[in-house]
Amino acid sequence: MTKAVYPGTFDPITNGHMDIIRRAKSVFEEVTVAVAISQEKRPMFDIEARVAMVKAATRGMKGVHVMPFDTLLVEFAKEIGSRMIIRGLRAVSDFEYELQIGYANASLWKEVETMYLMPSLQNAFISSSIVRSILKHKGDVSHLVPPENAAFLKDSIYVCDL
Amino acid sequence: MTKAVYPGTFDPITNGHMDIIRRAKSVFEEVTVAVAISQEKRPMFDIEARVAMVKAATRGMKGVHVMPFDTLLVEFAKEIGSRMIIRGLRAVSDFEYELQIGYANASLWKEVETMYLMPSLQNAFISSSIVRSILKHKGDVSHLVPPENAAFLKDSIYVCDL
Amino acid sequence: MTKAVYPGTFDPITNGHMDIIRRAKSVFEEVTVAVAISQEKRPMFDIEARVAMVKAATRGMKGVHVMPFDTLLVEFAKEIGSRMIIRGLRAVSDFEYELQIGYANASLWKEVETMYLMPSLQNAFISSSIVRSILKHKGDVSHLVPPENAAFLKDSIYVCDL
Amino acid sequence: MTKAVYPGTFDPITNGHMDIIRRAKSVFEEVTVAVAISQEKRPMFDIEARVAMVKAATRGMKGVHVMPFDTLLVEFAKEIGSRMIIRGLRAVSDFEYELQIGYANASLWKEVETMYLMPSLQNAFISSSIVRSILKHKGDVSHLVPPENAAFLKDSIYVCDL
Amino acid sequence: MTKAVYPGTFDPITNGHMDIIRRAKSVFEEVTVAVAISQEKRPMFDIEARVAMVKAATRGMKGVHVMPFDTLLVEFAKEIGSRMIIRGLRAVSDFEYELQIGYANASLWKEVETMYLMPSLQNAFISSSIVRSILKHKGDVSHLVPPENAAFLKDSIYVCDL
Amino acid sequence: MTKAVYPGTFDPITNGHMDIIRRAKSVFEEVTVAVAISQEKRPMFDIEARVAMVKAATRGMKGVHVMPFDTLLVEFAKEIGSRMIIRGLRAVSDFEYELQIGYANASLWKEVETMYLMPSLQNAFISSSIVRSILKHKGDVSHLVPPENAAFLKDSIYVCDL
Repeated sequence: MTKAVYPGTFDPITNGHMDIIRRAKSVFEEVTVAVAISQEKRPMFDIEARVAMVKAATRGMKGVHVMPFDTLLVEFAKEIGSRMIIRGLRAVSDFEYELQIGYANASLWKEVETMYLMPSLQNAFISSSIVRSILKHKGDVSHLVPPENAAFLKDSIYVCDL
Repeated sequence: MTKAVYPGTFDPITNGHMDIIRRAKSVFEEVTVAVAISQEKRPMFDIEARVAMVKAATRGMKGVHVMPFDTLLVEFAKEIGSRMIIRGLRAVSDFEYELQIGYANASLWKEVETMYLMPSLQNAFISSSIVRSILKHKGDVSHLVPPENAAFLKDSIYVCDL
Repeated sequence: MTKAVYPGTFDPITNGHMDIIRRAKSVFEEVTVAVAISQEKRPMFDIEARVAMVKAATRGMKGVHVMPFDTLLVEFAKEIGSRMIIRGLRAVSDFEYELQIGYANASLWKEVETMYLMPSLQNAFISSSIVRSILKHKGDVSHLVPPENAAFLKDSIYVCDL
Repeated sequence: MTKAVYPGTFDPITNGHMDIIRRAKSVFEEVTVAVAISQEKRPMFDIEARVAMVKAATRGMKGVHVMPFDTLLVEFAKEIGSRMIIRGLRAVSDFEYELQIGYANASLWKEVETMYLMPSLQNAFISSSIVRSILKHKGDVSHLVPPENAAFLKDSIYVCDL
Repeated sequence: MTKAVYPGTFDPITNGHMDIIRRAKSVFEEVTVAVAISQEKRPMFDIEARVAMVKAATRGMKGVHVMPFDTLLVEFAKEIGSRMIIRGLRAVSDFEYELQIGYANASLWKEVETMYLMPSLQNAFISSSIVRSILKHKGDVSHLVPPENAAFLKDSIYVCDL
Repeated sequence: MTKAVYPGTFDPITNGHMDIIRRAKSVFEEVTVAVAISQEKRPMFDIEARVAMVKAATRGMKGVHVMPFDTLLVEFAKEIGSRMIIRGLRAVSDFEYELQIGYANASLWKEVETMYLMPSLQNAFISSSIVRSILKHKGDVSHLVPPENAAFLKDSIYVCDL
């Protein structure tokens, strides 16, 4: 298998996500980072900003594509011709949710496969919600996010109505 | 003991819930499915639709009653003359929450008893939130919900402002 | 359903077990406490002592029976004409193990049902292994075990090669 | 070390929180209860009411201070000259979240230390969200909250638009 | 990456393991099933029997190799020229243990990568210890293990001193 | 409070333990590292070796004492005049076990208090059992243990009958 999908909300993309993308790329020739529009989650950054940040962070990584999506994940995977989904695992609570989603996806498309990767230890505590929470209090997130987005995120403290 | 209460939001009722109702019925002569109004959870379906779906799915099951409620669960149980509460357990995160609720209920009414049942394996990953998430993306949920409600839920994709 | 089985190693029986037996009795007319011989677990007390302690603690509870067993639990349940198994749930780690056992039992006998009960809060931390660990260090366990067994357990500190 | 910070939303303060404050006070000379404004959590009680309730409940406890805050916790701790954070631990889900927050705080300020305390067993199931849920259904919470606040909370049932 | 290692004790190999092997094979061209000698775990079946059972069950699967090993896993992986380890994930307790092992392996060899796969739902509760426990009580395990080994395992009930 | 006890088996002491000792020392004037004899756990290193390793690793840390013990922990704490127990928390499974032990200790001595500390992220995966497992396979543990013990542990590979 040569193609995989790495779905998420990426609100915003973190060093933890980057870690998973690099690991996925070492296994698969092509990895599509699929940015969920997730209107109902009321993301802090709109879909254009989230896609732009993922693109900036993965620029120069050969075989990594970035696309927004707003359908069922299994439909998106079928469309781009991949049946392999990548997910990062950090905590026990992640794990239970992932298992439930994984079985739900398998009930919708028998062929789909989910593969879980573990970020390196120093990224294991980083989540988008931690980053958003620090941003809301005007703190420094530059050690938690890709350097390409650090300036944009710092500015967002003043521009966004967080 | 011959009477039990099975409370929930049932937004909407799933095959996992049906599994628990059938198991509860094999132990107790009467089972009241108590549909919580749960305004603060902002359910996808209003209380009338949720009650109607539970009624449709349990029609013909002798000794199964369906009632909406908007009080403390222990008050509702007292009113209908039952001190036995039924809950389904799927995941570890369910379990911790249930334990906390169970001890809170026991602190409000010493006589109340909670009994936990496990759905069969093929229903273990199904939750109302999974069903709602698939509905929101116009996917097929007919394998996850009682057949009596499948057509209504399919139509809801177009009617509801999900 | 009027008959239930409550299986365990009961090495030794604790106030947490007694709590579950009383709750089970309030639902079922007959409850058989099934004491597993569990040779491979190398119990601290032999099967005779464990059965005797359960009998002493449940003497006078109408409809409670005590029996040793050394077969598959589902075989034992079939033999005594019960298809309902009772288990106590304290902690998350209990829960996962119980789920696995529950599904294994269901794979061996489709008719079997497992019902989980929660001990009251003050008994929620008590386990046989905690009791054994205190006994091994010659500590007082009289607040953790049925009063009928407290004297025997106190003496066991000196008699047993713990 | 003689000074510690105990941060939270305290919406409202419960007997579980009081338990932790007393334990923290037995270790540190001064404990500052830091009430997070937490606008984004949409608290049931506004910051003035929450601070007032914590003050009422801790009146007479020497060395306990109460302050609202709306910055990053590590900034607040620096400002009041403490590098020790106190947190209560009840459940596994608490624990994972706390670990993530603890590592995030340590990534922002290397000197900060987090110490976790366990409430006594009878308070282990109490949470502010349980209290709010009972209040919303006009139930009695007087056994779950400090006596100083019981009357105010009872009145809030009628006054607040819960 | 085209080569992966799937390590375990396989005491004995189950349908859950077979599920993971098939999934791993759909991603990698070659999968080496590495059977740990694990003397300290006192396995029920000796290393020869365990290797023979894995070989019998995977016969005819192109690109699947079976090898015993008794070194550190990362040493074994290096030797066979693979830096990708496959593990199955069933339960939360599995997950925590796996995370710890994964980080320990990464501390020994920076290049190593661990990928986690989820068995299909009907295999999610099966473990070698469940199979051993049923065998010890002379129960039927033919629905839990590869058909190639069912007869051998049935006979082992009478031959082994379980 | 100025005195604390940090109990464990320390089989052998790791960098994770050292981290907790340093954190405890920053809160308390005196910290007694209490090495449990734990015969029933069949430790890899005997009590003399384990105490010697803890002493070597903490030499020069003012206010840190090392003592073996073979009584109930609460008895030991009383004897040395401390009512504060320190424990490190790494994983969810740790946490549940610790909670149970904490409540059991509190049932034996009402005055005892347990305080949990979190190791730094890079030590979060290290456990004595991981170290023993690497030693058993003659691997390098020098990055996981205090430098004072690395040579002794390396030699133990050849001397001990692991």
